[in-house]
Amino acid sequence: MLDITYEIKDDLKNVELPENLVFGRIFAPHIFEMDYDEALGGWHNPRIKEFEDLRLSPAALVLHYGQAIFEGLKAYKQTDGKVVLFRPKENMKRMNASARRLCMPEFDEEFVLDAMKKLINLDKDWIPTKPGHSLYVRPLMIATDPVLGVRPANNYKLLIMLSPVGPYYPEGFKPVPIMATDEYVRAVRKGMGNCKAAGNYAGSLLAQKKAIAEGYTQVLWLDAIELKYIEEVGTMNIFVRFDDEVATPALSGSILPGVTRKSVITILNDWGYKVTERKIAMQEVIDRYNDKSLLEVFGAGTAAVIAAVSKLKYHDTVLKFSEEEPGELSAKLYNEITGIQYGRIEDRYGWITYVE
Amino acid sequence: MLDITYEIKDDLKNVELPENLVFGRIFAPHIFEMDYDEALGGWHNPRIKEFEDLRLSPAALVLHYGQAIFEGLKAYKQTDGKVVLFRPKENMKRMNASARRLCMPEFDEEFVLDAMKKLINLDKDWIPTKPGHSLYVRPLMIATDPVLGVRPANNYKLLIMLSPVGPYYPEGFKPVPIMATDEYVRAVRKGMGNCKAAGNYAGSLLAQKKAIAEGYTQVLWLDAIELKYIEEVGTMNIFVRFDDEVATPALSGSILPGVTRKSVITILNDWGYKVTERKIAMQEVIDRYNDKSLLEVFGAGTAAVIAAVSKLKYHDTVLKFSEEEPGELSAKLYNEITGIQYGRIEDRYGWITYVE
Repeated sequence: MLDITYEIKDDLKNVELPENLVFGRIFAPHIFEMDYDEALGGWHNPRIKEFEDLRLSPAALVLHYGQAIFEGLKAYKQTDGKVVLFRPKENMKRMNASARRLCMPEFDEEFVLDAMKKLINLDKDWIPTKPGHSLYVRPLMIATDPVLGVRPANNYKLLIMLSPVGPYYPEGFKPVPIMATDEYVRAVRKGMGNCKAAGNYAGSLLAQKKAIAEGYTQVLWLDAIELKYIEEVGTMNIFVRFDDEVATPALSGSILPGVTRKSVITILNDWGYKVTERKIAMQEVIDRYNDKSLLEVFGAGTAAVIAAVSKLKYHDTVLKFSEEEPGELSAKLYNEITGIQYGRIEDRYGWITYVE
Repeated sequence: MLDITYEIKDDLKNVELPENLVFGRIFAPHIFEMDYDEALGGWHNPRIKEFEDLRLSPAALVLHYGQAIFEGLKAYKQTDGKVVLFRPKENMKRMNASARRLCMPEFDEEFVLDAMKKLINLDKDWIPTKPGHSLYVRPLMIATDPVLGVRPANNYKLLIMLSPVGPYYPEGFKPVPIMATDEYVRAVRKGMGNCKAAGNYAGSLLAQKKAIAEGYTQVLWLDAIELKYIEEVGTMNIFVRFDDEVATPALSGSILPGVTRKSVITILNDWGYKVTERKIAMQEVIDRYNDKSLLEVFGAGTAAVIAAVSKLKYHDTVLKFSEEEPGELSAKLYNEITGIQYGRIEDRYGWITYVE
């Protein structure tokens, strides 16, 4: 096992977080960094050091050919002061899956999770404690070889940075309007849409920009092949609550296997709901809205936890839900999951990992 | 018009290029750099300076969400010593098209082309003159905002770096073996496969790795929807010469509109060939190979110019061509295009731009 070295900034003890934390704009003072060099036997030099600019060659592979993967999870300060992570092993596992798909080196999941805990513990004063606030944890792996040729790199960096955050959406926990599109697609099966790869996001911005111009916060992507079935919302998975079933798109190869998605399925099953993972046609969503058997729609993801949908637009059709209050099940799920995260509700599934 | 500032390294005049230039491993001493800041009115501070490490925040958007586009073109030293570029306006135009698709800022194409010429002129001693050698020119645009939230950045850098290069493939101008796959896909229409976006390449590495493990240099991608039609080779477009037609896949939205592809079409039309841009099923290629009406297959791209195909594998079928000598038309096209580039053949299309 490698030893982590520390280069700690001692002069950064007075933490003053801004009143309104926008998502991902400020960072805790320390960062974890580890290097990979095939010629040096793999991962080496793990260290916790000051958060500062990276020095990267202008020819670094990540900038040209997008060999970059990341994860997103959150650390919470519970009511008794304990600092916890929510299902972090799932993120470690998924990051290694992304690494395999992008020909990047796998890492020891236990070691990196341990480093993450050490980093969070060091900067734990940066965890905001207001309701809905937390410390967003962003592991990132990038290819650093300064070589212009399309091939997997030999050199990588694995980083973990921390950002104190408020709610992901400007709406807070208020329902968000989303827009389905068949003008652009996010990913296709046999591609890399089921990975947290940087390239998946760059292609999504134009559709998002158009959605925002029409007053919608996010894009609901349809499958790339038939342009018919709903897939995901880029920053979260999607759930549709019918009167007899809660449905979410089956993991088709182009959908990110979300940790919150998985948790929602477990909780709903426990609560006795009929939960299905299947193909859901956009037309089915519209038809069942029209015959009033569609009760609510919500997204599930680490950043927003649960985000109720206020409006869902597709072409000229707008399905309307409450713009003020989340649907009954969305609210219940949000309370349940954040309850477990903040320690208000017993961790009956063993999802909580203590940082100290 | 902005003024370019110069910070020139004077102590780098003794240029000694290695005997065997591998593609994209060494760089000329200077780089062009220009910054974009929405708040400062757009592009500003264009400068030619030493090629050195960039300082980027670990949270820079490009590393997390892949907002990165690039171009590739080549500068040649002609027999009379004149330095030229091949159709550089096409690359400028395509880069702005990529920028629009990825919500990145467009730039003044004439200004950047002029900056490119100034940079090349400064480092023109780094242009290798051996046959098949040239100075590879790599414009790159990256998003630099240190903000973790999926949205277009407000800050960007546009860079141009120069790399003296030999042949792209280790085979040189010898025919290359390629392998078609339906196990993975590169891109899908309505995505960003028709852009030179970093993310398109990261997803292609795993299939390429598997091809290399079987002794094939590159992957021939099939369309992502039906997994039936040939599309491109990632680093080049593909042409199939039948006995009555030279066919290349039509630009479907998931294929890069190559400058060399376009040039090949023009030349072949001029030469009286019947050239078609259409759907080409992999099965058609196999059938026509079997009935002997398929004469040769070749790739066309900036890096390799023309690369004849020695073998084309798909599942258990291997189509075999000469492993030693390029096909007749491949050789003729290679000589024609490189002839125009190096000045041996008259530039009858106005494709050559002089750097000085």
